[in-house]
Amino acid sequence: MGKNCMIGQAGGPTAVINASLKGVIDTAQQSKEIDNIYGMRYGILGALNGQILDLTNKSSKELSLLRDTPSSILGTSRYKIVDYNEDEEDYIKLFELFKELNIGYLFYIGGNDSMDTVDKLNKYAIEKGHDINIIGIPKTVDNDIVEIDHTPGYGSASKYIATTVMEIARDSRVYDLKNVHIVEVMGRSTGWLAAASMLANTEQLNTPDFIYVPEIEFSINKFVEDVEKKMQEQKAVVVVVSEGIKDKNGNYIAAEKSTRHDYFGHKKLGGAAAVLASFIKGNLCDRVKNIKLDVMQRAAAHCGSKVDVEEAYTLGKKAAEAGLAGKSGLMPLLKRVSSSPYQVEYSEIRVEEVANKVKLLPEKWINEEENHINDGFKDYVLPLIQGHIDLSYKDGLPEYASIDCLNKNILIKK
Amino acid sequence: MGKNCMIGQAGGPTAVINASLKGVIDTAQQSKEIDNIYGMRYGILGALNGQILDLTNKSSKELSLLRDTPSSILGTSRYKIVDYNEDEEDYIKLFELFKELNIGYLFYIGGNDSMDTVDKLNKYAIEKGHDINIIGIPKTVDNDIVEIDHTPGYGSASKYIATTVMEIARDSRVYDLKNVHIVEVMGRSTGWLAAASMLANTEQLNTPDFIYVPEIEFSINKFVEDVEKKMQEQKAVVVVVSEGIKDKNGNYIAAEKSTRHDYFGHKKLGGAAAVLASFIKGNLCDRVKNIKLDVMQRAAAHCGSKVDVEEAYTLGKKAAEAGLAGKSGLMPLLKRVSSSPYQVEYSEIRVEEVANKVKLLPEKWINEEENHINDGFKDYVLPLIQGHIDLSYKDGLPEYASIDCLNKNILIKK
Repeated sequence: MGKNCMIGQAGGPTAVINASLKGVIDTAQQSKEIDNIYGMRYGILGALNGQILDLTNKSSKELSLLRDTPSSILGTSRYKIVDYNEDEEDYIKLFELFKELNIGYLFYIGGNDSMDTVDKLNKYAIEKGHDINIIGIPKTVDNDIVEIDHTPGYGSASKYIATTVMEIARDSRVYDLKNVHIVEVMGRSTGWLAAASMLANTEQLNTPDFIYVPEIEFSINKFVEDVEKKMQEQKAVVVVVSEGIKDKNGNYIAAEKSTRHDYFGHKKLGGAAAVLASFIKGNLCDRVKNIKLDVMQRAAAHCGSKVDVEEAYTLGKKAAEAGLAGKSGLMPLLKRVSSSPYQVEYSEIRVEEVANKVKLLPEKWINEEENHINDGFKDYVLPLIQGHIDLSYKDGLPEYASIDCLNKNILIKK
Repeated sequence: MGKNCMIGQAGGPTAVINASLKGVIDTAQQSKEIDNIYGMRYGILGALNGQILDLTNKSSKELSLLRDTPSSILGTSRYKIVDYNEDEEDYIKLFELFKELNIGYLFYIGGNDSMDTVDKLNKYAIEKGHDINIIGIPKTVDNDIVEIDHTPGYGSASKYIATTVMEIARDSRVYDLKNVHIVEVMGRSTGWLAAASMLANTEQLNTPDFIYVPEIEFSINKFVEDVEKKMQEQKAVVVVVSEGIKDKNGNYIAAEKSTRHDYFGHKKLGGAAAVLASFIKGNLCDRVKNIKLDVMQRAAAHCGSKVDVEEAYTLGKKAAEAGLAGKSGLMPLLKRVSSSPYQVEYSEIRVEEVANKVKLLPEKWINEEENHINDGFKDYVLPLIQGHIDLSYKDGLPEYASIDCLNKNILIKK
C-alpha cells in the first residue's frame, strides 16, 4: 500500500498558480506510490482548521480547465508558522493530521514566506522522525525569490502590465491637454513588476516616461522635477511606480494611507500613485490620473504568458518527481541557459537557501538617473511574456475551472 | 476635379474608434470623387486652431495596423460648438478652412454631443449655401445613443469588463476572509457598461453579486443592507457600480470627491466605488477593495470584440458612402434583425433625431430589487462581445499603429 499526498497553495494568487497544482496532480495520479491526493483548503491555515479536500477521484474532465485558470483554486492564506522551538502546537496538529491521512508527500506552492514554512516543517519532520517528503514549489508575481531565474506568475503579470501600460499611454495622448497618468503596480519590496512596464516602449510609442522602484530611495521633489521637465517636451506623461516605494527614512510613500497590516506583519500598501498625484500641482497640468492595476495584474489569465504557464506546470511536475524520488526540503529551480534563443533547465535547491530572502532588482538594470530601467533588462524579461495561455473560450469569454470543481469534497477532520 | 474630405474624432476614445476612421479612409481612397483626405487633429477644437493632418498619401503599410489600434489616433476633444445664432465665430472659421481646403465631405466620429455638432454644422451649411456633405459616425463605450441598437466601442468595453470582473471575483475568493470588492465602471448617465458585467456570471462562478446603475436612485443604506445580507451567505461579495450613480436628490454619490468639470460642463466623476467602500464598516468584513477599471475599459483592444471592430469599420464605410451619395446631416444606423443567430442591418437616420438625447438602460432589464440585471439582458449584450480583434502580435505584445503614423504631416493653416 502506497502513501497519500497533500498539496497546498499559499500567499498571493497568480494567473498560473493552478498550473503548478495541475503539474503535481497529474504526476501524483500517474504514480503507483501515491494513493490519495488531498488539498489544503486555504493553505496551512485551513489544514490547521481541518479543512482538507479530497482530489483523488477528480476526472480529467473536471480538471481539464484547471491548468489555465487564474487564482489559487484551493484557496490560500498568509499564515506564518512560528519556530517549533518557540511553540510546537501547530506542528503537533499538522503532523497528527498528516499521520491520520497517511501523508507521505507534502507539496506547498508559495513565495519566500511559504518556503520558510516548507523549511520549518521539513526540519521538524526530520527531528521528530516523521516519514514525509516536503517540497516547495515557487510562485510569486513579485519575482523576488532568490536563486531561481524568475518565478512563475511573474511573466503573466509582466505581460498584462506591459500591454495595459501601452493602452493607457495611448489613451493619455488623445486630448490636447497636459496630463499625467501615474500607474501603480504591485511590488512591496522590489521593482520587478514596475520594471516590466518598460516593455510597453516600442517603436510605435515611447512610454512609460518614468519608472520608480523600491530599490531606489524615492524623493517626491525629484519626482515632481522629473515630471515638470518632461512636460516641457510633451503634453502627456506616463509614470509607473511600485506600491512599495520608500522615502530616505525608509517610510513607505503610501504609508499614511493605511495602517493595517496583513498576516505576515507587512504593512498593507496601495496608495503610492494617489499620494504622488496629490503632489502634481494644478498649474502644471490639466489632468492627473492615478490608476491602480490592483488584483487584475495577478489574475488576468486572459492576458497571460504561455511560457509562464508551461514553466509553472513543469515546476509542479518536477516537485512531485522530487518527492517521489525520496527527496525533501527542496524547491525545484529554473536556470536560464540562454535568453536568445530562450532556454531553461531545471534543477533543485534546499529551501533554506531561499526561505525569507528577497531578490532585489539588480542595480545594473536601473538607469543612472534612477527614474527608469535600462535596455539590458529587456533581454531578461522579454522571453518570459511570450505566447498566450491557450484558454478555452465560450460565448466570447474565457472558460475557467469551476470554483467548486475541487472544493466540494471537503473532508473536515477534527 | 473632385473635392476633398475631412475626418474628425470626438469625445472619449474607444477600442474601435480607429476602425471607423479606417472605414472612411478606405472608402475615400477608393472613390474617384475624393482627391485629398484630411484629418482634424483633436477634433473641431484642433480644426479651429488650424491643426489639420494630410492623410492622402498614407500607404496601406502605414495604415495596416490602424483598424485594430485603440484610442482616437487623430486626437480628440470635447469642445462643444454653440448655436450659430448665438455666436457665429467658430462657424466662420471652420467654413473658411473647409473652403480653403476644398472640403466636400466632412465625417465626424462621436457620441451624443458630437452628433449635435454634426447637426449644427449641417444646418449652418444649408443655411449659408455651403456645398458640403456632413455625416456623423456613432461611437461611445457608454452605448447611450438613441435609435441605434448599440454603439461601436460598447461591445469591446463590455467584453473587457465581463472578463475582468470574472478574474477579480476569482481573486476575491482565494482567502478565507470576509471581503467586499467594489468595481467601478464608466457610465455617467447610464448603466449599460455596469450591466454588461452580468456576463461574468457563468456556471463556473456566480458573480457579480450586485450591479447598481444610474437609472436607479441610489441609497447608501440599501446598499449596505444588500451587502450585509449577502455576507451572511458567503465570504466574498463583488459589487459593480456605475460611476454616475446618484442619490434621491440627484446628486452624484461620487460628487464630493471632485468639483472639476469637463469641457461639456459635465461634472467629472470617478469616486463612486471609493465612497461606497467607506460605508462598509470594518466590523462587517476584513477587507474592502475599490477597483476602478478606469481608461483600461475603453482602451483594451487586447480584450476587444471582433463583432464590435467589424461593425465600427462598416459604419465608417457606410458613412463615407452616404456622403458620396450626396447625403448630409445623417448618421448610419445599426438595426438588429435577430439576436440568435445575431444579425444586423444598416440604415440611416437624421442626426437631429439622435443629437443630445440619451438612451437609458430599459427598466425591463433591471431586477425588481433594483440591485442587479435581469437574464433577459444577456440576449442583447452577448452577441456584441463575440470573437477577438485579430491583433498583430510582436514579441508577445500587441502591435498597434504608430502614434505618429498619421500625425507627422501636420498642415497648419492660419
